[in-house]
Amino acid sequence: MATDAPAPDVTVPDTADDGRVPTVDPAALRDVLDGEYAEVRRGVRESLASYASVLVDAETLPREEFRERVREVVLEIAATGQSALGFPEQYGGGDDIGASIASFETLAYGDLSVLVKVGVQFGLFGGAILQLGTERHHDAYLADIVSGRLLGCFAMTETGHGSDVQSLGTVARYDAAAGEFVITTAEPGANKDYIGNAARHARVAVVFAQLEVDGERHGVHALVVPLRDEAGTVLPGVRIEDDGAKMGLNGVDNGRIWFDEVRVPREALLNRFADVTEDGVYTSEIESAGRRFFTMLGTLIQGRVSVGGAGVSAAKVALTIAVEYALQRRQFQASDDGPEELLLDYGMHQRRLLPLLARTYGLHFAQEVLVARLDEVFSGRGEDEATRKMLESRAAGTKALATWHATRTIQECREACGGAGYLAENRFAALKADTDVFTTFEGDNHVLLQLVAKGLLTDYASDFSDLDQLGMVRFVAGLAVDTVLERTRVHRLLEQIKDALPGGDSWDDDAGLLDPAYHLAMYRFREEHLIGGVARRLKRGVDSGMAPGQVFSQVQDHVIAAARAHVERLVLEAFTEKVAAQPDGPVKDTLNLLCDLHALSGIESDRAWFIEHGRLTVQRSKAITREVGALCRRVRPIAGDLVAAFDVPRPLLRAEALLGG
Amino acid sequence: MATDAPAPDVTVPDTADDGRVPTVDPAALRDVLDGEYAEVRRGVRESLASYASVLVDAETLPREEFRERVREVVLEIAATGQSALGFPEQYGGGDDIGASIASFETLAYGDLSVLVKVGVQFGLFGGAILQLGTERHHDAYLADIVSGRLLGCFAMTETGHGSDVQSLGTVARYDAAAGEFVITTAEPGANKDYIGNAARHARVAVVFAQLEVDGERHGVHALVVPLRDEAGTVLPGVRIEDDGAKMGLNGVDNGRIWFDEVRVPREALLNRFADVTEDGVYTSEIESAGRRFFTMLGTLIQGRVSVGGAGVSAAKVALTIAVEYALQRRQFQASDDGPEELLLDYGMHQRRLLPLLARTYGLHFAQEVLVARLDEVFSGRGEDEATRKMLESRAAGTKALATWHATRTIQECREACGGAGYLAENRFAALKADTDVFTTFEGDNHVLLQLVAKGLLTDYASDFSDLDQLGMVRFVAGLAVDTVLERTRVHRLLEQIKDALPGGDSWDDDAGLLDPAYHLAMYRFREEHLIGGVARRLKRGVDSGMAPGQVFSQVQDHVIAAARAHVERLVLEAFTEKVAAQPDGPVKDTLNLLCDLHALSGIESDRAWFIEHGRLTVQRSKAITREVGALCRRVRPIAGDLVAAFDVPRPLLRAEALLGG
Repeated sequence: MATDAPAPDVTVPDTADDGRVPTVDPAALRDVLDGEYAEVRRGVRESLASYASVLVDAETLPREEFRERVREVVLEIAATGQSALGFPEQYGGGDDIGASIASFETLAYGDLSVLVKVGVQFGLFGGAILQLGTERHHDAYLADIVSGRLLGCFAMTETGHGSDVQSLGTVARYDAAAGEFVITTAEPGANKDYIGNAARHARVAVVFAQLEVDGERHGVHALVVPLRDEAGTVLPGVRIEDDGAKMGLNGVDNGRIWFDEVRVPREALLNRFADVTEDGVYTSEIESAGRRFFTMLGTLIQGRVSVGGAGVSAAKVALTIAVEYALQRRQFQASDDGPEELLLDYGMHQRRLLPLLARTYGLHFAQEVLVARLDEVFSGRGEDEATRKMLESRAAGTKALATWHATRTIQECREACGGAGYLAENRFAALKADTDVFTTFEGDNHVLLQLVAKGLLTDYASDFSDLDQLGMVRFVAGLAVDTVLERTRVHRLLEQIKDALPGGDSWDDDAGLLDPAYHLAMYRFREEHLIGGVARRLKRGVDSGMAPGQVFSQVQDHVIAAARAHVERLVLEAFTEKVAAQPDGPVKDTLNLLCDLHALSGIESDRAWFIEHGRLTVQRSKAITREVGALCRRVRPIAGDLVAAFDVPRPLLRAEALLGG
Repeated sequence: MATDAPAPDVTVPDTADDGRVPTVDPAALRDVLDGEYAEVRRGVRESLASYASVLVDAETLPREEFRERVREVVLEIAATGQSALGFPEQYGGGDDIGASIASFETLAYGDLSVLVKVGVQFGLFGGAILQLGTERHHDAYLADIVSGRLLGCFAMTETGHGSDVQSLGTVARYDAAAGEFVITTAEPGANKDYIGNAARHARVAVVFAQLEVDGERHGVHALVVPLRDEAGTVLPGVRIEDDGAKMGLNGVDNGRIWFDEVRVPREALLNRFADVTEDGVYTSEIESAGRRFFTMLGTLIQGRVSVGGAGVSAAKVALTIAVEYALQRRQFQASDDGPEELLLDYGMHQRRLLPLLARTYGLHFAQEVLVARLDEVFSGRGEDEATRKMLESRAAGTKALATWHATRTIQECREACGGAGYLAENRFAALKADTDVFTTFEGDNHVLLQLVAKGLLTDYASDFSDLDQLGMVRFVAGLAVDTVLERTRVHRLLEQIKDALPGGDSWDDDAGLLDPAYHLAMYRFREEHLIGGVARRLKRGVDSGMAPGQVFSQVQDHVIAAARAHVERLVLEAFTEKVAAQPDGPVKDTLNLLCDLHALSGIESDRAWFIEHGRLTVQRSKAITREVGALCRRVRPIAGDLVAAFDVPRPLLRAEALLGG
């Protein structure tokens, strides 16, 4: 409630407020942010500026016309090659998955309907053909997908099943006599829903359906199913309905699809992980239907990685506008004869914006690490099962935190711009409406954090993929708590950090408030403790005879808190390591300051937990609150440079009136 | 971060989870909610259902057409008399200000452009004529305003000055020779901005301007200024620009207005509190320009009261959809052979929605108390200065909490409905976009809370109105802290409550977790302590030689926390008193349960503060977290009834697909 960040009772000298005002060159900082993919990002920034008018079209064109406009822009982007970097060179791609994510992230500075349509076409649809298909599909489709000649959609979600995709109701039955699959919407609510590109532009869909061969079900598989002919007429047996107006992203034509005995050839099955022989024998190297499905899903995690990155970019746009506004806008006099005070000189305004700015930097670097890992795994440099599972978990968790951060940051920035922030010309309207769905698409954030928790609790066990939430409860309940903890790698990390800090077990009292080892120790302690607590509670629940579903329901908020604590730790580690890797100088000093603010405001916002668990005295907790205020005052003078380093092309900010052109 | 509501480490029997499942008749509960104005509310509900199609128009019509449609609906409402309840009977009104707010609150179940246009025309424009004008203005305008024959606007905010309205830049200079005022936009940024009804429909404006008589400035006053002729053509000297597309509320035609030496007769001055004689002598019974202006503003607080009530209503609509959805939607199996689990049977889902539901009830009753006080004061039953000031403070604080609650609740409800919540047909799109500005219009919430704090710190001193933030700092610094505390009435309340609880000073350990006296004691303690702390910090800052502006900046978050704590206490008191006033029975039991959940989840979310200030042991803090979970489980079986009691007319929910028609 009220006092999330309560002010302390006593004012003591701020330990960090040493009067040192850092100075930093925004361009140097931008180069650090741009990192390995600076050139790709620069190219996308230039393209973005050239079609910035689409931001106005989003506001002025009727829905159908705007959809067409967005389609045109997507084709323009396709022509630059910026959307194909993740595809093999032989089909016109760049063979560089890391670069493809960097490109997508930067694209997120612009109109987000364009971004999402790019994501649907090249990430989801094209990605599914690439990752789940084999050469025959690649040869048949990829070149046309890359060029944009063939637009398609990714038809997974159904009205009745979103989060629990294993329970989809669409069926693909193999008719051995005809050598064809028969696709059917087999029950009410089993129609595909919210499918981007479906309402207008997709000629082909990758359809996820329960595969049935000779009366036996083998779980969910993907098939290529034509939806429309070249003229755009919907094919027989297919029924498509427009999802209509949405809160945002109205340049994307989402729709519902029903299939009534639609026949496709046997070869339409994307058969990288499983196949059906001509005479109707199902084959797969992966025995378990559950693991098979999650292996397929695992190849598609670029979608989640991309959405998380887009969330961070959207937060950057919002912060750029709000911070620049707060550096121009004056209101109320600060002294009797002085000018009115700049908004950013108000303590509360600093408190509202600057920790969010620091966290945006943290999430940026966490995303960078994630993309590097993704690039490793998908380039075949990190092929083992556990590495893949950890990557999936990290992608899920980062997506959840980054998209919630975007929602929160955009809201705070809008309010910090008052009535001006409410005008469409100042971008917040579109930013808010377009990003809102990020928290629930490509995986509902709460469900994603449950996935993270499952990985932690089972240490990415070999049967990890098979476990639904009930399975997870039983699995954990079957282990000793010590075994669970032993398995979590956190335990070891915590031991290491204790050694590095003064005070041994009581590092929380003796370490300096601005010691990164202290921050890490706190984040790691929380993670380990929460995971251990979840394990204990699950075990105790099952032991007491409660049904696993009921146990899960009662422990669910704890499960999610544990997963969050894990991802928070990953974010802080990424930030800390980035700082450590910088050569001495203003850039390092600046990032260090931001990392301190991020770490301490994170501890502050969860200080009740730390106090409750014996890792924070009341006195130290109050000192942290004071320190966060002091850090905000130190960040204040460079706030403008910090947003300038995001390098959002000026025309994309719009906000001409608000920022004075 | 992560663990806002962390799960406890140990599962102990839930003290409140006694297996008692309350049952309650939604109609009986609705009658309690509807209260004194049940008949008015019923009438508005019926009207609303009859033009529910405007919700679809909001989504489908081009902006200009939608504006016209909204205008038509506003005129239809005017014809029912529902928008005129606050005006004198002689002009077609109902002479019942309480009823007029009840009507407005209920109207907020429907399209919010309609609501805001009603607010602009009858609340702001009509209200200003009524409250600031005298008989000559009433006779000239009120009957036409009430009927909707004369549409007008309320031109206060300027591009350059929103929160600090005393510094407006529009000037009204008296030309004694002509017996006229000359209205001029005297500096860049002094144009009126965001003015509802200005871009299209207003023929007349109430313009706030610096009054200048014979070279002397007398502060901000209001004048009636024609903008357009009967044909709608903008008059000479007036320039109007359309604010264009907004995040939401696109049925309201907001605009900017510039005045270039526009002449109006001397009688155009709304002269209830000040006048200028024909020969150019300024007269007012209120000597101080500051106090005069705040007296004028004080008569206009219905706007804030109305917006707060509208926020509560919008939260009710969102919760109705999300709770009903969670009672129909199933996802993931709860046991191996059972059906999939209802969303509302997930612990996390309960945690996300049910405390918000409880708080919505609390804010409803707080709003009810506020409206009753407003009705008293404006009916002349509570005329003294301190009563008025307290009413203004209460209106400001309730508006801030209610509108933030609306933003947060609508967001949580949207996410709880997943992708379906993103479709425009399910209402969240409009609810989110339309209510977003509530937190910053009719007073920015942070600025409003500073107003609340000022009242607390000065105990609504007679020179209260004159104090800007610097004045407040100096005023408080000039008193002994004890004097400040003595003056805050909280002190006395706290003493009373201690007597009523076991344990004397250590009531926080000895009282039952579900004892309302315990909840109140905690809320009152926090308020008193925060106010004392602010006083001390302000004093110490000034004593140490810091400039008042800098002192204010550094203490600002503490100031705002103190104000919030005050308003939270008022909300809890309103809720507690409502429960106590009910006759024994299921309605009382139900409200009691909700009040417990509201009070304890409020303590839980601020438990760090209570621990830091010695009023909560770690053990008891954990017990509160457990209790909140247990209370959620007890509310779960009646959640459907609790939203049914809001009685949102079915067609206004839309959500046909989501809720199955």
